[in-house]
Amino acid sequence: MTPRQAAQEARASSRRVQVMESVQRTEALRRMADALRSQSARILTANAKDVAEAARAVDALEMSQAMADRLLLSEKKLGTLAEGIEAISEMEEPIGRVLQEMELAAGLRLSQESVPLGVVLIIFESRPDVLPQLIALALRSGNGLLLKGGKEAVHSNRILHEVIREAIEPIPASLFALVETREAVSDLLGLDDVIDLVVPRGSNALVKHIQENTRIPVLGHADGICHVFVDASADPEMARSIVLDSKTDYPAACNAMETLLLHRNYPHAQDLINGLESAGVRLLGDAHAKDRHGLELTHDFAVEYGELSATVCYVDGLSDAIDHIHNFGSGHTDCVVTQDEAIAKEFLSRVDSACVFHNASTRFADGYRFGLGAEVGISTSRIHARGPVGVDGLMTTRWRLVGSGHTASSFARGDSVFTHRRLR
Amino acid sequence: MTPRQAAQEARASSRRVQVMESVQRTEALRRMADALRSQSARILTANAKDVAEAARAVDALEMSQAMADRLLLSEKKLGTLAEGIEAISEMEEPIGRVLQEMELAAGLRLSQESVPLGVVLIIFESRPDVLPQLIALALRSGNGLLLKGGKEAVHSNRILHEVIREAIEPIPASLFALVETREAVSDLLGLDDVIDLVVPRGSNALVKHIQENTRIPVLGHADGICHVFVDASADPEMARSIVLDSKTDYPAACNAMETLLLHRNYPHAQDLINGLESAGVRLLGDAHAKDRHGLELTHDFAVEYGELSATVCYVDGLSDAIDHIHNFGSGHTDCVVTQDEAIAKEFLSRVDSACVFHNASTRFADGYRFGLGAEVGISTSRIHARGPVGVDGLMTTRWRLVGSGHTASSFARGDSVFTHRRLR
Repeated sequence: MTPRQAAQEARASSRRVQVMESVQRTEALRRMADALRSQSARILTANAKDVAEAARAVDALEMSQAMADRLLLSEKKLGTLAEGIEAISEMEEPIGRVLQEMELAAGLRLSQESVPLGVVLIIFESRPDVLPQLIALALRSGNGLLLKGGKEAVHSNRILHEVIREAIEPIPASLFALVETREAVSDLLGLDDVIDLVVPRGSNALVKHIQENTRIPVLGHADGICHVFVDASADPEMARSIVLDSKTDYPAACNAMETLLLHRNYPHAQDLINGLESAGVRLLGDAHAKDRHGLELTHDFAVEYGELSATVCYVDGLSDAIDHIHNFGSGHTDCVVTQDEAIAKEFLSRVDSACVFHNASTRFADGYRFGLGAEVGISTSRIHARGPVGVDGLMTTRWRLVGSGHTASSFARGDSVFTHRRLR
Repeated sequence: MTPRQAAQEARASSRRVQVMESVQRTEALRRMADALRSQSARILTANAKDVAEAARAVDALEMSQAMADRLLLSEKKLGTLAEGIEAISEMEEPIGRVLQEMELAAGLRLSQESVPLGVVLIIFESRPDVLPQLIALALRSGNGLLLKGGKEAVHSNRILHEVIREAIEPIPASLFALVETREAVSDLLGLDDVIDLVVPRGSNALVKHIQENTRIPVLGHADGICHVFVDASADPEMARSIVLDSKTDYPAACNAMETLLLHRNYPHAQDLINGLESAGVRLLGDAHAKDRHGLELTHDFAVEYGELSATVCYVDGLSDAIDHIHNFGSGHTDCVVTQDEAIAKEFLSRVDSACVFHNASTRFADGYRFGLGAEVGISTSRIHARGPVGVDGLMTTRWRLVGSGHTASSFARGDSVFTHRRLR
């Protein structure tokens, strides 16, 4: 089957699955969770093949150790995965929620309801645990999937797909196709007439490549250049803990701080610098930060280090900080630390990013922490979904109109009149 | 100024305008409406130049009469336009609406609010009245605009832009740039890093061209192949009036019926055919319709006539009708006429189109009739906005998080716990 045919079959299955009773999908999800536990031996045997090949590739310097580590499944990981899927099975039904309702005229009632997006292409690297998570989300939300995993995880992805397929019967397995043909990612990216959304799960380079090579809307972010602006009035203890957490809690995350913006009149700047350096953070600074704290000079303020490094820049005040964020940021997550409510309010309404924070670590920009249940991804696009995206990002809407023979011409003639009365 | 610079300035202006008080934008909109009335002489003088050139082009067979007609402005049209803008000035403020609110943990509060999308490219043909309408919507919603009109309306667009610019001071005129450089549309379509959305207002050919030549998301529809399915149980009087209205009320509209699907057991089919033919509708049919009603045979069921013509096809029942709609429709608007509630319910939940109607004319699929205030367009895309789109289609969201020094690591350590309590 070609990827195009697989996409068409996934759409047909999505149309069937979305009209099934909610409980049928809930039960399929429970059986899927059970199967990940009961079939763990089969899964781990297949996974061991990928892991062994990865070890050889690492020895031959063809793969990084980090990538090889991400491949590894275990009894414990499968258990966690099963728990996550049980949580998804208990989620509020996302299909058919009535978002608004209006009486257009006597006896003519309009409603807008949530429906599945359609067919989503997931392109993921190494981590085979992405596959069951995303199949579970698709099943909960009635979407069709095309799954394109990395060749380094081929045995793991294949067995997981097989185990899940067996578990969820009578849900049609064509709902989520594993694309294993030789077609390159670039061929899949050309299927914009049969695929509604692409979700890349992998490196920035992968996301950027996809964004630049498809007309299918992309849910994701290539860069996460997050700022913390420490205002003159910031509480020094709070500034210290937020800045340290934002940078050091998990430096490789997209929501980690990359740039520290210091108000020129913040009196405790040296303490903050010392705190970061004691935590092992390498600091680069603009001319002012170099002079004041002896940092290594940098002129490149749009860097995502993804490790224990950060840029320190001085700003003259709020407007200067906001300009810096707009000029060098990526619209992901930006934070102000201040005790001044007026400054906080202005920062929160003027900074044009997906997430704007006051006195809280940038690390909270995350679907789980935001209480979204399951995370599809974090989007820095301004269309469809922005910031951490839960299952809502896999839904669209449909308008339903119910009348009793209403015609437009009778309104034009004045025989009928619009009331446009909001009911919900 | 290059289009790229204009887009960047429009974004900077959008960021300034969205933090202005609502009343400032409301008053600018009122002054804009007044100016269209008080400056009508200036506007109509400039419009007359375009109209005269169009008349010459029509004589030389270089322009259709219909296109030339759409260019013409009048005192009355400007008055209607001014009223429309006054209605937009009175719309509920779309910026800063709180869509949801959640306590993530004690003292850590998350909200999601509506904010302007950013910079929208409008590409429009002939009708110069599109320009003030869309500037008004942009002003209400705080968006920046790049306006690319057709060269046939160059004088009209220029004067309208000038009159509005003067009227709305101190709102920066760079919020809405008229692109008059020689750059072709294709150059604008390449600016996907500085433009967030493109809204084409014009022919299907224009929309299709744009959809196929840009990575910027497109809000619009190329095709409107709408179906009315007349079930066996349909009330004959209702079927007749809905089918006639759907086809003949305004045949050029995207929401006009193109295909009539008849249940093989509907007993009043010949009456329906007679009614359509008496109204001057040319009918083409599938083999069954040809045999039964002597219609001209057609094998092409995916036709948007845009005039008084329609396809008639017989179906065996609901599932067959739905398959036909999925195979040949454009996902715009589809209607079932039936007295059977079970059939209606199944049609409404299984048909995968932007608008699904029961016992109401397809012509209701329209922003004004749907009570959306002003229409940005009708979208057959499944991403971001679907069906008739009001000002909501020009908005995105932003997450705001307010804490008092919260760090992710304190949750990892167990010193803090998530409550995830929904507040709104």
